[in-house]
Formats: sequence, structure tokens, C-alpha cells
Amino acid sequence: MPLQIDLNSDLGESFGAWSMGDDEALLSTVTSANVACGFHAGDPVTMLRTAQTALANGVAVGAHPAYRDLAGFGRRAMEIPHDELYGDVLYQIGALAGMLGSRGAGLAYVKPHGALYNRIAANPGQAAAVAAAVSDFRADLPVLGLPGSRIQAACADAGVPFFEEAFVDRGYLPDGTLVPRGQPGAVLHDVEQIAERAVRMVTEGVVAAVDGSLVELKPASLCVHGDTPGAVQMALAVRSALEAAGVEFARFS
Amino acid sequence: MPLQIDLNSDLGESFGAWSMGDDEALLSTVTSANVACGFHAGDPVTMLRTAQTALANGVAVGAHPAYRDLAGFGRRAMEIPHDELYGDVLYQIGALAGMLGSRGAGLAYVKPHGALYNRIAANPGQAAAVAAAVSDFRADLPVLGLPGSRIQAACADAGVPFFEEAFVDRGYLPDGTLVPRGQPGAVLHDVEQIAERAVRMVTEGVVAAVDGSLVELKPASLCVHGDTPGAVQMALAVRSALEAAGVEFARFS
Amino acid sequence: MPLQIDLNSDLGESFGAWSMGDDEALLSTVTSANVACGFHAGDPVTMLRTAQTALANGVAVGAHPAYRDLAGFGRRAMEIPHDELYGDVLYQIGALAGMLGSRGAGLAYVKPHGALYNRIAANPGQAAAVAAAVSDFRADLPVLGLPGSRIQAACADAGVPFFEEAFVDRGYLPDGTLVPRGQPGAVLHDVEQIAERAVRMVTEGVVAAVDGSLVELKPASLCVHGDTPGAVQMALAVRSALEAAGVEFARFS
Amino acid sequence: MPLQIDLNSDLGESFGAWSMGDDEALLSTVTSANVACGFHAGDPVTMLRTAQTALANGVAVGAHPAYRDLAGFGRRAMEIPHDELYGDVLYQIGALAGMLGSRGAGLAYVKPHGALYNRIAANPGQAAAVAAAVSDFRADLPVLGLPGSRIQAACADAGVPFFEEAFVDRGYLPDGTLVPRGQPGAVLHDVEQIAERAVRMVTEGVVAAVDGSLVELKPASLCVHGDTPGAVQMALAVRSALEAAGVEFARFS
Repeated sequence: MPLQIDLNSDLGESFGAWSMGDDEALLSTVTSANVACGFHAGDPVTMLRTAQTALANGVAVGAHPAYRDLAGFGRRAMEIPHDELYGDVLYQIGALAGMLGSRGAGLAYVKPHGALYNRIAANPGQAAAVAAAVSDFRADLPVLGLPGSRIQAACADAGVPFFEEAFVDRGYLPDGTLVPRGQPGAVLHDVEQIAERAVRMVTEGVVAAVDGSLVELKPASLCVHGDTPGAVQMALAVRSALEAAGVEFARFS
Repeated sequence: MPLQIDLNSDLGESFGAWSMGDDEALLSTVTSANVACGFHAGDPVTMLRTAQTALANGVAVGAHPAYRDLAGFGRRAMEIPHDELYGDVLYQIGALAGMLGSRGAGLAYVKPHGALYNRIAANPGQAAAVAAAVSDFRADLPVLGLPGSRIQAACADAGVPFFEEAFVDRGYLPDGTLVPRGQPGAVLHDVEQIAERAVRMVTEGVVAAVDGSLVELKPASLCVHGDTPGAVQMALAVRSALEAAGVEFARFS
Repeated sequence: MPLQIDLNSDLGESFGAWSMGDDEALLSTVTSANVACGFHAGDPVTMLRTAQTALANGVAVGAHPAYRDLAGFGRRAMEIPHDELYGDVLYQIGALAGMLGSRGAGLAYVKPHGALYNRIAANPGQAAAVAAAVSDFRADLPVLGLPGSRIQAACADAGVPFFEEAFVDRGYLPDGTLVPRGQPGAVLHDVEQIAERAVRMVTEGVVAAVDGSLVELKPASLCVHGDTPGAVQMALAVRSALEAAGVEFARFS
Repeated sequence: MPLQIDLNSDLGESFGAWSMGDDEALLSTVTSANVACGFHAGDPVTMLRTAQTALANGVAVGAHPAYRDLAGFGRRAMEIPHDELYGDVLYQIGALAGMLGSRGAGLAYVKPHGALYNRIAANPGQAAAVAAAVSDFRADLPVLGLPGSRIQAACADAGVPFFEEAFVDRGYLPDGTLVPRGQPGAVLHDVEQIAERAVRMVTEGVVAAVDGSLVELKPASLCVHGDTPGAVQMALAVRSALEAAGVEFARFS
């Protein structure tokens, strides 16, 4: 039986008159779409258009909730009481799920965005608030995140299915965490190298850390970024390299 | 068989650190709660608390979507393209419905807020956008509004159930429309008079217009306001007078 | 003495992570920059960067206030009480003027944006609110707008200097007003034709209306748009054609 | 020569349809008003009304800038890049200063709000961004804050005048910092005790810490809170006690 992998990307991150990313192209390449829910990006028209295109392409639609921070694109870490974060996540999930329901579809998973993604990897309280919101929305709704993170533990506590993802264009430390942005090797730019890493992640279950040691991974999904120049080219290169290695693509959810 | 009537009120209109209205008291008095959905008022914590209290009291929870206008409390009429209004309403409905679903309950109806309520009474395009959003969200989800309005016609066209409401503290013109705010007789303040009008609306199906003529009404629900000083007292007086007249209270939806 | 003209363009309309327009290129071409003030576009970092580049290039900086409407880019007409519009405009003007003051410069003029621009051309109440805000901010601060508009009359009443502008890429009706968007001939796209019109506006004081009749104009400034594809090319073509006709460029303010 | 002190309070924290605090009463009691600038509270109409009442009462008007966080009332700590915080503070200061200028008055000082106030007490980077924004706006514009804080150091570095304030209703640790909220003794509620502490702060230059030891203080201003029930009563009690002790009231700025 051939190896299978999911490709996910952040999509629907335009807002009103402002465009971001080439969603049309990426929705022909990925199998899971993390759709912005209005708090960091994604006005309702954009949300609906992105969701409909994803559904038409057979791409799974996940919610991509964020801190309420349009001006900072959800990239600014925030201290926020448990009930407010719980409510914000529940609100955003419901808004997208309602749109999907209006098209006869369901929400496939949740992957938090930006600073919230990073905070719930490290902060147990915020992780618990997110896991509770997902669990209360629908007990079997999966969360996509970093292996070994606080959100993984919080999902385990709350009975929420958790799936691991790996980042094809990010550097890894020997302990399996990501090289923090701003440090050398944090972000890779060489498309060929990135494609090779993606293949190795899936076929061998390893990635080379910055010190050359091998980190073991079992990703259910690979994240390809959608908001940078060259994003489409990189996603296509990753997909082609995986296809050439005999890997098949299927939604993780 | 005794006469029955529904009482509805706008609730959950606090936002963050700012409070508005005495929701606890009104939720002991009304049978339907129009819950703000975040665009003119109603942060997620407030939405959830209001919805939970309503459910605990057996009060039906309806969505109270509005223009995106926190600074103006949704009271400023807005020209807005069809797809944007459709998306904004669908988004708000879904957000509240998701919260209700997380508590094992469902959304009972939709009643637009403020300037949107007034615009869809008169503007066919905006009315059609709202009716389409409601219909696409759930084909049998009722809308509460003014009899003879454009939204009533749009709901008929879209196959959306429409229920008529009457305003106990607003003056009526002979043609059954409301006296515009700012004109003499637009808003009534005498609690005893308001309670008498409420009883007559339900038991006789009429209300006295500003010129003394009688307007025929068949309201499924009476709207009592929640955001003014004396709101709770007025709601209680209306309820007491109706009870004294042998009217029973039941959700219209 | 050679003819002189000002070229103005809407600039600084990025917001947070979202970019719009090629401000660098346009700021090498125009003589007046209408800088967004945060209500429809223009976060503070963008405002400051745009203002500084303009100052470095000798370009006059005007405020480009709008309705509070990020989601609609200020393009949605709004009913708004006089005191709220007055306050919103005063707030936005002050915010930009403070930034300019921090760089040792002053605000040169005010040109409202989008739906507000259109509303104050036709609505006396909103026009009066804008004129009062400008006048109270600084009695001699000029407003740039459409000749024959309500805002021109309101500025006259308030003692605010008013300067006329013309649109190089918009169709004109025989009475000198613009062909409404959505009607045939509303927007011109042929760069050569647009450049020719610009020259004729300045050197002959006329523009050909959609019916072929000539409309007389005395523009102090020509507006070249910055937010469309080809905007830079069109602005350069207009500037080149005017230069070739011996026209010189100078700030109107 | 009699002792003098300034009393400051956070004011103008209503927003749109939502009211907060009894600004009228407090503006008869304090000598300095920290006026919200729109990012955590304070729509333009409220800002202007508050500023005008303050000016009419001879109360100094200071800017009370905050993180961009209406939903959290600026109480949520935020990681924010230097240039974004610098821009946000400059924007808010300018907006209020423009309103004051329109009434022939000037901005008297700056006191950051809520989570920003707390962050710049401890975080050198954010403190430097705030000090730079104030300094660039007007080199001699004073900042009001906690003695021994990072913002005091940043103001010293930037050449910005810094004035110390003390909190009449907050508990102190022996090192002169405040007891963190949520810990025992963090907030005092006994009006008589609070008034006595205020007198001792001014006449003796000391306050009793939670362990009974005496902390030395030289406040230029005492902060009385305006957003809690009983705020007006407490402010009046503090003022009366100070008057009885022969202290006079004067703006620190």
C-alpha cells in the first residue's frame, strides 16, 4: 500500500479590498485548507469563496482561528483570560462551520493561526481554552498542531483528536522543535532542498536538524505556506517531489 | 383555548468591559431573546452567557445580526453590496448557532438589528440578501419582522417562514407603519398606556394609530425594549397586564 | 509664465500585513499625496512611512479621512449623525497631523475618501460636518473636492479654502458631474486618451463629456488613481504628456 | 508655602452607545484627566466632550494611549514590534492633541493605559517605543508613571520629562512596587483608610507597605480610579482629607 500524506496551507487571508496569496492555485495543490475566520484575516465574502472553491476541489476545510487582531494579522502574542479565548475560538469556528453547513458540508478540523498557534504550543492555560472550545463545538473535531506541544497534551486531556504536522520550509532543532524565527536556519528558501526534506519526512519519517542530527517525525500533514512570494511554486515542487517518490495525497481528516 | 403571545427583547448587547441592559431580569420576563452577534454589540463571552441563561430559563434564542458597526451600535444605515451583506449575516448567524450547538441547543429564529432592521423593511435588495443568508443557513429558520415590509416579501420569495411582531412602545401611522423616530408620538413612555396597548394588540388585534384610527395587527410576538432605563419595569408591566387579561406566554418559534 | 498643475493620488492604503498600490513609484510622480488615516486603510506604520517618503520627495501631504469602515474600504455610504462625522474627521486629521508634526512638517490639505467623498458632494449635512471639522482644526486648511459640490458650498459657508480637482480617467456628464460608476463611460482605460484629456484640462480648461459637448473646468489638481493595476503607468503617462505640453508641476496647497 | 498635589483619573472611557464612569463628577474633583484615545475606549465624540469639560473646569488633559484592543479594554498584554507600538502611540496622541488644538488648548502629558502601562513598567523595548513616540511628538511633553519603572528610565534616555504618581487604593510591596492584582492586599476598598494613605503620601512622603514597613514616595500626582462603583465617592473623600490637611491642588504639568 502506497504512502499517503496531507498537504495543508493557510488560505482565505484576504480582507475586504486587500488581497493576500494565490488561493486559486494553492487550492489545486493542497488537500486541506486552513481558512481564516475573520479575527486576523478573512472577511465573510472571502471565507465563503475560499470554502466553496475548496469544496469544489475536494479539499478539506479547517478553521484557522486567531487572536482578535486585524492590525497585527494575528501575529502578536496576547495575554487573554481563559473565557475570552474560549469564546473567541468558539465564535470563529461556528462562523465558518455555518458557512460550510449552508453549502451542505462540514468543518473538517481546526488549526489555530500565528501567535495563537505558537502560544498554545507552550502555554497550558491557553491550550486548554482552545481544546475546550473545539471539544464543546464537536467532540470529534480534530486539531492539527505541533508534536510535543501543550495543545497536544490539552487535546489528549479533553478527548480531542490531535494530528501532527511538519513544516517543510522551517529549520528544526535536535529536540524536534522549530528554530525560532530570527535565528539562523529558521526558514529555508531553497525549493529543491525543501522538496527533498518533504520526501524524507514522509518516506523515512525523519528531518535533518540544524546540527545535522536526524529528528524523527510522523506527520499526518505537511504545511506549505501560502502567503509568501514563491509560495505556489514551492507547494508545487513539494507535491511533485512527493508524487515522484510514489507518495499519494489524501486528507488527514 | 387561551390566547397566547410571545415577548421578545434585544439582549446580550454588552461588549467587553461595557455593560448594557439588565439581561438577567429581562430573561425572566420574555419568551424570546434576540442575541447580539458581535457586529454591533455582543462579544463572544457575552453571547455565550446570554444564550446559556436564556436556555436555562426556557427562552428561545434568536440571532440579532447587524451591520458591522461597533462604534455606531448598528444604528447607522449603510449601503452595502449584496454579497457582503449576505456574508455578514451568514457569519453572524453561524457564530451564534455554533455556541448554541455547543450547549446542545439550536438557533430558533433571526431578527435583524437597528439600521439593518429598518433598511430591510424598505429596501428590496438588502432584504433579499438577508432572506437568502437565512434560507441558506437553514431552510426552515424563521425571521421575525414588520408586517408589510420588504423583508416579509423577500422571505416569501425565498421560502423562509416569516412571523410578524408589534412594538408596544412605538406609535403607529394609520397605514400600519411606525411613526418615524424624531416625529411626535414616535415613542411612548407611559407604562400604563403601553401595557393597555399590548393587551389590545393581543386580545383585539388592533392598535390605535396617532390619528385615533384603529390599525389591525396579528402579531406573533411583541417587542419590549431592553436597552433603555425603565426597560425592565415596562416589560414586567406588559407581562402582568397580559396575564391579567388571561393571555398565556409561549415562544412563537 | 508657464501653466502649472498639481497631481494628487490616494496613497498609504496598505493595512498591517496587506499591501495596496505602489506608493514608492507614485510618490515620484505626484505633487500631493492623499494619505489614508486609519479608518478605511492606513495603519500608523504605513501612515508614517508614506508621509515620510512624501516629505522626502517634496510632495504635499493631505489627510484622506473616511467613514470608519475597514471591511468596506470606506466605499459604503453611511448615514451618520453630524457630531459623529465631525468627531471622526477631526480625529483622523489630528492623527496624521501629529505624525507630520513629529517630522517637523504640517498638514497641507484634506481630501475625504470614497463614499464620504461622494456623500459630501451631494449631502449638505455631512458636508457641513466635514467643513466644520476642517475649519476647527485649522481655519486656513484647504479642502480638495469636486466643483459645484455641496462640500464646496459648505467650505464657503465655513470660510474654508476650497480647491477644485478633476479626474483624468473618469467620464463627465454635460453638467460637469461624473458619470456614475457602473454606467457606460464612467471609467476610461485608454492611457493615451487619458493623457490627452489631462493636457486639455490644463491647457484649454475643458473636457469632452460623454455626449461630445465640452465642459469647462479650472482644476487646481488632477487626480490620478493609485490602487488599480496600471496606476503607475497611467500616472507617468499623464505626467509625461503634460510635461511635453510645457506644463509645470507644483503643489496646489 | 502650602503643600500641593495633583489628582489624576482615567476618563472618557465610554464608547459609542456604551457608557463608563461618571466623568462629569470626577472632572469636578481631579486636576488632571487621562483621556482615552480610541484604541481601548473613547470614540471621538466622547474624547471631545471629555476634553471640553476638562478644559472648562481647568483640568489638565493628558493622552491615555493603549494597545489596539477594544474587546479587551486594553487590559491584555501584547507582544508588539517597536515600530507598531511607536506608531500606535503617536497616532493616538496626535488624534487627541488635534481635538485640543481645535479648542485652542494643548496636550498636557501622556499616561499609557492598562496593560501597556504595566508592560512599559517592566519591558525596556516597549518602554523605549513609547518614550520615542512622546519625544518625537513634542520634546517637552511629560509622561506620568511609576517610579523606578522601565518607562522612567526610557524617558530619561530620551530626554522626556517624567513625573511620578502614586495609587491611593493599591497595596505596596516593601520595594515600592505594587502588589500584583489577584494577590491579597492588592486593592484597598476602605474609603477612610484610602483617604488617610493619600494624606500621608503627600504630607509625609511615605506609604505603609503590606508588611507594615514604610515606603518613601515623592508623587507629583495621585491616581484615583474612575471606572469602579464608588469611584466618585472615593475621589471626593481623598480630596476632602487632603484639603483638611491643608494640601492644595494643582496640575502637575
